[in-house]
Amino acid sequence: MRTLDEKEVADLLGAARIGRLGCLADGEAYVVPINYFFAGGAVYSHSLPGRKIEALRAHGRACLQVDAIEDSFNWRSVLAYGTFEEIRLPVERREILQRLLVHFPLLTPVESSMAQDASAPDSIVFCLRIDHMTGVAEGDSNGSLNARFE
Amino acid sequence: MRTLDEKEVADLLGAARIGRLGCLADGEAYVVPINYFFAGGAVYSHSLPGRKIEALRAHGRACLQVDAIEDSFNWRSVLAYGTFEEIRLPVERREILQRLLVHFPLLTPVESSMAQDASAPDSIVFCLRIDHMTGVAEGDSNGSLNARFE
Repeated sequence: MRTLDEKEVADLLGAARIGRLGCLADGEAYVVPINYFFAGGAVYSHSLPGRKIEALRAHGRACLQVDAIEDSFNWRSVLAYGTFEEIRLPVERREILQRLLVHFPLLTPVESSMAQDASAPDSIVFCLRIDHMTGVAEGDSNGSLNARFE
Repeated sequence: MRTLDEKEVADLLGAARIGRLGCLADGEAYVVPINYFFAGGAVYSHSLPGRKIEALRAHGRACLQVDAIEDSFNWRSVLAYGTFEEIRLPVERREILQRLLVHFPLLTPVESSMAQDASAPDSIVFCLRIDHMTGVAEGDSNGSLNARFE
């Protein structure tokens, strides 16, 4: 097992689209998969209201774990720590939602309208401002990301 | 989005082999991918010493997040909460390691010897005794697990 350098960590974080968000809910670790993109040192995502958002509002520190796993002996995993921020400005919300949803060409009418109507009050757009990242790998770390992460 | 029933949660947890372990390290959520199997109400895994094991020894509550994601609108995710226990009895360690490693037919010599020599002092075999599980799904929840999770 080896430590990834800064560029390798940023490359994996930038290339993947699905990660697992870890936060604290009622004093315990809480982990959920999210769609995201990484830009300008922040991880952007969106969510409907629920336990994840309540947890992030109550305790703003969180992490995003992202991996590319070929098999048990050939994998890379990164962990990015950051602070939760809600994006409230309509123009920013719209840009972020469009960038999140551009990866999914087959949107249902509900999702299309969500992408267009970024001011829908029940959709929360947020970011984690990343301040610390680590990464480890085992085996051949030059393998491409699994298709489902691209 | 709908809540999975108890059987659906157990089925996904039982069918997958890779999950994301969430625990508390230095007061923050810490998430890492692990190989595991689920049996008798517990999640079994193994690890070399490191931050994950230090965190689990210091704060024994943890969770395992497991998902089957076809795309952004068709996925299932479960979260199982439990308490960390180290398995120290050589016969139990051996059985667990063999079951963990049986899924990987191409073991390197190091891994083969690890599987055989379950008493190797630096390999930690552990379980989470699960006391609470939840699950949610979106879209067609009857889709099969992605191959990389089987």
